[in-house]
Amino acid sequence: MRPYISMITLGVSDIAAATAFYERLGFARSSESQEAVTFMQAGAVVLGLFGREALKDDAKADTIWTGNGGTALAMNCADEAAVDAMMDVAKAAGAQILKQPQKVFWGGYSGYFADLDGHAWEIAHNPFWQLDEGGQVKLPA
Amino acid sequence: MRPYISMITLGVSDIAAATAFYERLGFARSSESQEAVTFMQAGAVVLGLFGREALKDDAKADTIWTGNGGTALAMNCADEAAVDAMMDVAKAAGAQILKQPQKVFWGGYSGYFADLDGHAWEIAHNPFWQLDEGGQVKLPA
Repeated sequence: MRPYISMITLGVSDIAAATAFYERLGFARSSESQEAVTFMQAGAVVLGLFGREALKDDAKADTIWTGNGGTALAMNCADEAAVDAMMDVAKAAGAQILKQPQKVFWGGYSGYFADLDGHAWEIAHNPFWQLDEGGQVKLPA
Repeated sequence: MRPYISMITLGVSDIAAATAFYERLGFARSSESQEAVTFMQAGAVVLGLFGREALKDDAKADTIWTGNGGTALAMNCADEAAVDAMMDVAKAAGAQILKQPQKVFWGGYSGYFADLDGHAWEIAHNPFWQLDEGGQVKLPA
């Protein structure tokens, strides 16, 4: 079996507030959503927003369920201007800017923001990676 | 701009050990990888494995960078048998089984495991969601 990622669910403290934040970023709430969970198409994958404690209980995750998690979601952009534009959208949406977009050691350009619950997002341009129309990356084998 | 997720990077304590774990799950290390970072195709998105402290530094994430993070990656499967099979692969690969696959309140079937660094994965069958050939979910608007 070849595994894959089809959804990323973020545990959040206030689903309505988190949903409004991600709508300000430009995501749309799908009609699949319910009061207790929001689903948004995020390119080829689904972004889920679910109560942090409810998700912890659902996962039976117990003591590992704290902090930010050392996890970064990423949106790879076609050029530096698109990175700047998305970081501006994030700032206006109420994100905490962790790192202003800048040239980085691996030859690209990236910034980071944190959402209302501290989940980190990298907005990056990698000149060595090809993107399809939807922004998805296809790696060589 | 319509945002999207193109990559998920997990901060890990030992890149070689984490890479070997994800290879046991069935992911393949791309030739884009380097000693300090592993990239793996994960369906339509890229799974990155990067040093937990290095990623924290890259993101300037400071004090939010602890624990598991209240984040769950997910692999949506076509049926319950595929969920069981993937959970078996995860257990054999050295994952910590958080929740044995079981019928869940929303009408589906799911289990959870944690990887070597505590990142949670849900393996789920949702009878109400359509999957494409690659397992990706396409939500209604």
